[in-house]
Amino acid sequence: MPLLVTGSLGIDTLETPHGRAEEVLGGSAVHFAFGAAIYTRVRLVGVVGEDFPAAMRDLLASGDIDLAGLELRKGSKTFRWSGRYHLDMNNRDTLDVQLNVLAEAAPKVPETFADSEVLFLANTHPALQREMRAAVAGAKLTVCDTMDLWITGHREELLRTLAEVDGLIINDSEARELTGCGNLIAAGEAILGMGPRFTVIKKGEHGAMLMTGKRVTVIPAFPTKDVKDPTGAGDSFAGGMLGYLTAEGKYDDDALRRAIVHGTVVASFTIEDFSVNRIRNVTRADVEERVKQFTAMLRIE
Amino acid sequence: MPLLVTGSLGIDTLETPHGRAEEVLGGSAVHFAFGAAIYTRVRLVGVVGEDFPAAMRDLLASGDIDLAGLELRKGSKTFRWSGRYHLDMNNRDTLDVQLNVLAEAAPKVPETFADSEVLFLANTHPALQREMRAAVAGAKLTVCDTMDLWITGHREELLRTLAEVDGLIINDSEARELTGCGNLIAAGEAILGMGPRFTVIKKGEHGAMLMTGKRVTVIPAFPTKDVKDPTGAGDSFAGGMLGYLTAEGKYDDDALRRAIVHGTVVASFTIEDFSVNRIRNVTRADVEERVKQFTAMLRIE
Repeated sequence: MPLLVTGSLGIDTLETPHGRAEEVLGGSAVHFAFGAAIYTRVRLVGVVGEDFPAAMRDLLASGDIDLAGLELRKGSKTFRWSGRYHLDMNNRDTLDVQLNVLAEAAPKVPETFADSEVLFLANTHPALQREMRAAVAGAKLTVCDTMDLWITGHREELLRTLAEVDGLIINDSEARELTGCGNLIAAGEAILGMGPRFTVIKKGEHGAMLMTGKRVTVIPAFPTKDVKDPTGAGDSFAGGMLGYLTAEGKYDDDALRRAIVHGTVVASFTIEDFSVNRIRNVTRADVEERVKQFTAMLRIE
Repeated sequence: MPLLVTGSLGIDTLETPHGRAEEVLGGSAVHFAFGAAIYTRVRLVGVVGEDFPAAMRDLLASGDIDLAGLELRKGSKTFRWSGRYHLDMNNRDTLDVQLNVLAEAAPKVPETFADSEVLFLANTHPALQREMRAAVAGAKLTVCDTMDLWITGHREELLRTLAEVDGLIINDSEARELTGCGNLIAAGEAILGMGPRFTVIKKGEHGAMLMTGKRVTVIPAFPTKDVKDPTGAGDSFAGGMLGYLTAEGKYDDDALRRAIVHGTVVASFTIEDFSVNRIRNVTRADVEERVKQFTAMLRIE
């Protein structure tokens, strides 16, 4: 039951209160892929420039990630992002963004990927998300992310995309922006009214909320002191969630509830080190151990 | 197993996005008492001025609240607070504070209250908290709250108080201020190093964290769209928590974990209407129904 992700690959430079990382592997599709690869082989569709270091390609290849859909485009430059985290680690300033190859033509979905059953459309232009979805029209589960740029500037396009997907995974501030609702339950209901049959609203260090037509589930983040770099936490949450669902082959209410626990735990590993340094060495057994701790913490009787 | 609370009683005027309430009953001890009275009779120690309306005294008396320790001081005026909530309901501006009688001599703990087994020292000057504690020296469980004013301006006094209590219930921002730790787990550990054997860090709409020497428990808030006035949520959380513990007569790790669920649920009722309008009509059965829903939400397997 193959899982396909399409989104950004990038070269990040960032500072947190715990240190600085220069020119490290980043991007939404990358963090998603490493989180999902703990559960299942991941098909990655994305594009980088010719400056993309061979070492980074090797790093991706070292995971359970199929790179047949990774285009290395001659004459183009890789997406770059640079940011600095505040002391509280829940907020950050973007210091520099160079879209580079992301502003050019989208990568192609290889024909061999067309039979993917689960599809994650990481944050990008909503029209492009629909184009990608059309290339994997037989997917049983299609989930997307989005961001403020599309919510404010390309709302109609975004609404068309939302009408076509099964699920939306989104930040709390963006859920509020998208719906105009301050209360997150109200925001979740408004999102379901836009098409998706479920939505996950991510609250960073405060956890996540899953809303389906049936019920609301709110869970905290996995409690940890060990936060070195929050970059990619949200994308690896989505990766853990959809990786788990793909491996299970079930997408019902109970499976979704278990899946947000897996997303939470996967994100808790991602933030323990810069870039993919920690997550790339995490095993399914490591995840299950934390899932056990976490569900026991929440079982109060 | 009587429960005693000492803290402020006041007259509040407030505005939320849902309306305005003029000259309504408020104060930390009041919100605590109504939350706790769902579980057990509450002994209240506090002082008001001669302007305290008879109707407000009657309102207090209508709950399961023993007013033998409520002093109505001639020639003094009742504490007044006025505030306005932001659209997100998790932040507010204080428009006016008149300490009035709270700046005068403390109320006396009646001798008949000296045998109280559980004691909650709501937010006030830490030296006064110790004085109150000395008057109920035989208490089996003493828990206090505090605020930024004492953390920054009377730190040594506060540390002496913390060395004497069993538990501290505190807001997240104040926990960070008290300990200098940005991470809440680290802040909780630092608080345990100051004396208390447990601490609860309240995160408003994001829930609460309980830390004991044994384990960390993080739970979300009870999910609700029905938020009219968050005033007193934290105090009624403490009331529900200690009311439950008093009724149980057990203060171990498992009891504390169940108690924060009760605090969470009690707070979810408090915020559904202004002042004590909702909480004063809540029954133990109402609470148990929500506790059942909440623990089922968190039981993920």
